[in-house]
Amino acid sequence: MNVAIIGASGYTGLELVKILITHSKFNISYIANSTGNINVQDLHPSLQGLIDMPVEIANAKEVAKVAKLAFLALPHKTSMSFAKELLDLGVKVVDLSADYRLELENYEKHYCPHEDKENISSAVYGLPEYYKNQLKDANLVANPGCYPTASLLALLPFVDYIDENSPIFIDAKSGVTGAGKKLNEITQFAHINENTHAYNPFKHRHMPEIQEKVKLLKDKDFSVNFVPHLIPVTRGMLVSVYASLKEEVDVEAILEKSYKNSEFVRVRNSAVDIKSTAGTNFCDIFVARNGKALFINSSIDNLLRGASSQAVVNANIMCGFEEDEGIPKIAYAP
Amino acid sequence: MNVAIIGASGYTGLELVKILITHSKFNISYIANSTGNINVQDLHPSLQGLIDMPVEIANAKEVAKVAKLAFLALPHKTSMSFAKELLDLGVKVVDLSADYRLELENYEKHYCPHEDKENISSAVYGLPEYYKNQLKDANLVANPGCYPTASLLALLPFVDYIDENSPIFIDAKSGVTGAGKKLNEITQFAHINENTHAYNPFKHRHMPEIQEKVKLLKDKDFSVNFVPHLIPVTRGMLVSVYASLKEEVDVEAILEKSYKNSEFVRVRNSAVDIKSTAGTNFCDIFVARNGKALFINSSIDNLLRGASSQAVVNANIMCGFEEDEGIPKIAYAP
Amino acid sequence: MNVAIIGASGYTGLELVKILITHSKFNISYIANSTGNINVQDLHPSLQGLIDMPVEIANAKEVAKVAKLAFLALPHKTSMSFAKELLDLGVKVVDLSADYRLELENYEKHYCPHEDKENISSAVYGLPEYYKNQLKDANLVANPGCYPTASLLALLPFVDYIDENSPIFIDAKSGVTGAGKKLNEITQFAHINENTHAYNPFKHRHMPEIQEKVKLLKDKDFSVNFVPHLIPVTRGMLVSVYASLKEEVDVEAILEKSYKNSEFVRVRNSAVDIKSTAGTNFCDIFVARNGKALFINSSIDNLLRGASSQAVVNANIMCGFEEDEGIPKIAYAP
Amino acid sequence: MNVAIIGASGYTGLELVKILITHSKFNISYIANSTGNINVQDLHPSLQGLIDMPVEIANAKEVAKVAKLAFLALPHKTSMSFAKELLDLGVKVVDLSADYRLELENYEKHYCPHEDKENISSAVYGLPEYYKNQLKDANLVANPGCYPTASLLALLPFVDYIDENSPIFIDAKSGVTGAGKKLNEITQFAHINENTHAYNPFKHRHMPEIQEKVKLLKDKDFSVNFVPHLIPVTRGMLVSVYASLKEEVDVEAILEKSYKNSEFVRVRNSAVDIKSTAGTNFCDIFVARNGKALFINSSIDNLLRGASSQAVVNANIMCGFEEDEGIPKIAYAP
Repeated sequence: MNVAIIGASGYTGLELVKILITHSKFNISYIANSTGNINVQDLHPSLQGLIDMPVEIANAKEVAKVAKLAFLALPHKTSMSFAKELLDLGVKVVDLSADYRLELENYEKHYCPHEDKENISSAVYGLPEYYKNQLKDANLVANPGCYPTASLLALLPFVDYIDENSPIFIDAKSGVTGAGKKLNEITQFAHINENTHAYNPFKHRHMPEIQEKVKLLKDKDFSVNFVPHLIPVTRGMLVSVYASLKEEVDVEAILEKSYKNSEFVRVRNSAVDIKSTAGTNFCDIFVARNGKALFINSSIDNLLRGASSQAVVNANIMCGFEEDEGIPKIAYAP
Repeated sequence: MNVAIIGASGYTGLELVKILITHSKFNISYIANSTGNINVQDLHPSLQGLIDMPVEIANAKEVAKVAKLAFLALPHKTSMSFAKELLDLGVKVVDLSADYRLELENYEKHYCPHEDKENISSAVYGLPEYYKNQLKDANLVANPGCYPTASLLALLPFVDYIDENSPIFIDAKSGVTGAGKKLNEITQFAHINENTHAYNPFKHRHMPEIQEKVKLLKDKDFSVNFVPHLIPVTRGMLVSVYASLKEEVDVEAILEKSYKNSEFVRVRNSAVDIKSTAGTNFCDIFVARNGKALFINSSIDNLLRGASSQAVVNANIMCGFEEDEGIPKIAYAP
Repeated sequence: MNVAIIGASGYTGLELVKILITHSKFNISYIANSTGNINVQDLHPSLQGLIDMPVEIANAKEVAKVAKLAFLALPHKTSMSFAKELLDLGVKVVDLSADYRLELENYEKHYCPHEDKENISSAVYGLPEYYKNQLKDANLVANPGCYPTASLLALLPFVDYIDENSPIFIDAKSGVTGAGKKLNEITQFAHINENTHAYNPFKHRHMPEIQEKVKLLKDKDFSVNFVPHLIPVTRGMLVSVYASLKEEVDVEAILEKSYKNSEFVRVRNSAVDIKSTAGTNFCDIFVARNGKALFINSSIDNLLRGASSQAVVNANIMCGFEEDEGIPKIAYAP
Repeated sequence: MNVAIIGASGYTGLELVKILITHSKFNISYIANSTGNINVQDLHPSLQGLIDMPVEIANAKEVAKVAKLAFLALPHKTSMSFAKELLDLGVKVVDLSADYRLELENYEKHYCPHEDKENISSAVYGLPEYYKNQLKDANLVANPGCYPTASLLALLPFVDYIDENSPIFIDAKSGVTGAGKKLNEITQFAHINENTHAYNPFKHRHMPEIQEKVKLLKDKDFSVNFVPHLIPVTRGMLVSVYASLKEEVDVEAILEKSYKNSEFVRVRNSAVDIKSTAGTNFCDIFVARNGKALFINSSIDNLLRGASSQAVVNANIMCGFEEDEGIPKIAYAP
């Protein structure tokens, strides 16, 4: 099946190209970025010898001529107007931006006025472990944010056991590719190497995304308090969730049971690290308890499970292919 | 005043040598490690051209002949037996190990039987901001652990305002020198670069140290739940304390007031980073609030404020010198 | 075809497992290390969910029962005695150690007495670009060292043009996995992060390997002067060759022509970096000239092209499979 | 003596502030950058608690009112026009840019037309080991580039012994702060971490600077071929010089003799590393020989010995102070 990649210049766009080059069912028929006029292997020199294709300036009608599904790796706002055009032309969309992740009111509170009110309510949230059935029939998938992916996969199994009167704290650590490719003082080597710090504590936009999904899936209103940190690694994300249990339950058993049939969630028996999931679509999770104090610990690759490989899993499900078709499971990092 | 450094091979021993080389009141008259028989500049080649002195095998009587105060950078258990000898000979001791940090019962619960029951109860806990008066007359100072230093300086100003029924969570991130110089799989570059993970979650020995000091200083029994993480930086430590407030108080004002006269605590108006304190004795602290959810964020150099420079501050106070004599405040890191 | 991996604990052993898990022609039927008694996914936790197989203590007869070809990732000396046993039992061998790389006399000069004089002379040097025909019929392949792989691929196209009266200098930079997994002071994070240094200048054992192959392939006796450096990266190798040309030739054209049919050598038009080849079997090469001064610059992944993936390419050729079957070409590093 | 720092925003400007804060003879009376209107501790938050002073927009007349000497950490071209103004007003100048480093013709060939032809010929090249006498009477000092500092200190002792018919190759590795603070794709963490590569091979502007000084000091015309590399470290520089000797001389003795009276050059007996000089003004040098093949290996901190601390050493000599007054010799890096 022919597919398009819109927004090929950034980190997640490059990862989409790499995954789809070796995918046996999807064939890249169209690549676009904001400038066009370059071959994709000049845009990303590491692709030399692997793919030879022009990069276009995105045009929805051209996409509709050559592709049945499009991956959008665009800035929010830009994404919703282009998605709307594609959907009207009958192209399925997996959107990697934030534009369709939240309910309308919540989106407009935390981002900006929405420009595609028609489609936002039918978008399916692309967290496969919790939305697989809806994904099968979806024409529009909102690919989750990296922090919400790792946080929700850790938190959701325990929501029923957590004391609603105590706050939940999520201390998350992200590699610098999470901040995007745009030049930025905090992603300069001299700033972040041998360094680490929180940013936007209690104010990051992924906080309402986590809170909303817990509410929708579990009907619980928690105080979710989210503090992201930047750490000196290129890719990878580690999430530490802290909460109070209502009573001293068997947390290992709860976790084990929740994911026993999930190919891409691995339950670990010791603290997880980011190197074991980097380069793959796996989410590794570990849980520990001290009396009623709960620690849930998850790890993902922010660019793959937190973006591009999860997008391809979602596309696989939308198109009736095997969920793991073309999905990276092995990384060449020791 | 002549001083001795016992345990010069490790990271903290080297930092002690460097600080004391340029100290105008203390003069290094004796250096020891477990093997002796080497010049200190061969033991640490970066000292070439700065100091020229033999390294001995530690002997308490020899120390007593040439030094009035000794810094012990020894493994726990080794430290208490040597400290006892020195104290009996009239040598003042700043002990960087864990041996005198806890009350006897607590120590024996978390470490091992204590071999110097005579002196443990008179040891002063060397956190200068909270124990300055006792330090002035001390003959034996227990230098705090690195995690407790950063955690207590963050937590103590807020203890009276925190809800005792909710757990306190401390998510701490440490550079790999915190694990010591002994060869170790987790401190290998190939393991920890581009990686991060928790270790000993809820089980680290610094957890009872923090809890005990909160109890002693503030008479509060909290559930303090401590999760340390290893991050790919050489030195530096970032601590994130999460707690529930009893009510929505002005946390910035509380913090500002607590440390307005403290030379080595800097109150920050945005999230702290470890690079700003690395190479110095400063502890930087920032606080934020989301309703009753509290985030306190502190940063220190684990080898300096978390060990060697705090030890020299303590020695300065014990000997009636200026608190900041010889203490590093400027680091040559951009 | 069933294959065995002998020496699965180290870095190159793990990479062999990962490559062969997804290889469509080779099937791992036997894995060994020095201790046995463990499942391979406990030996390497990142393999959880990917392979489930016991690790044995290596026994040549057992190997011969279940495998037709064995990859040996063993220390030198250990390797030659085990290889001999396997060859006698009719098992083909790809040896990743140094044991069969040199001519007998040269080996004994730089390593130790050789214990398999029978087979050393028939071993084929596994640099596919220069030994493809011999590899097709080989029963025993000596997989080249990482430094010689990157150095020879850079140097060989230019040997005929270099002034034999001037020394050739090779300044090589290797990631720390090149030093192996054994605990080591120089591979500790605190030593090598924010650091770099040469080691064994003019004395590394890969120097005679490079010199011998230049002599054998081109019949030229150069003074090859090799200085390896350790750099703070996990994997990857950059080689800078400096030499004097006999005359001012068109070096780009020479390079282009040499590798125009080589799938795994990419000629670059600007200085190469290690990130573009990390995680793949590619060798990227760039050349520049200043008058008669020559700079040839190559990059490989030291664990893949410098060891495990080159080993599998060699095995593919030995067994008549496509050269690139199962060989990694895409890495998930931005 | 009151001094001014012009250009306080960049890396070298910050290092100048830090050095001069603790200098007992120089007192910072004026700080400028291109925008002004900020306190220096807001410009560089790590200075909180250490200095409290407004940053001005540079004005030569204002400088002349309050300072007798100015350090210029400005871009080339900007620097020469400002230096000229200061010199006319009787202010001594230590210029950290390239503007006065070369002879006029050489400068105009490699940079741009010169705007201060009056002063360029009287500027003294600030490499103290080779220009100390001239520095004593200088009003204008051209502080050397970082690469030329490390390269010349390594190369100069051996110039008389090197074969003039063979090219000299200099393979240099620099930390990313060498590229300056301006946002730049190659200094982004995601680009350079776990990476390394050459840049401007044979074309860097420091190549003519090295060649000219060898010519001026030793009257030798060598082919100096310079290839700089970027390595994933924040600060520090390692230089490897490769050359052919005329005959097999005792290179260790030559090196030892050259620097036996130099406080800031340390001759090492094994390969140097950058961590031992980082944070200090030291240059460490090691030499090895293989027949006539020569390897000279030096290490400096690119921001200190390669810029700011060397500038203060030069100022100390110009003003008749002790050469090492205020100069960092101890770094808090393990």
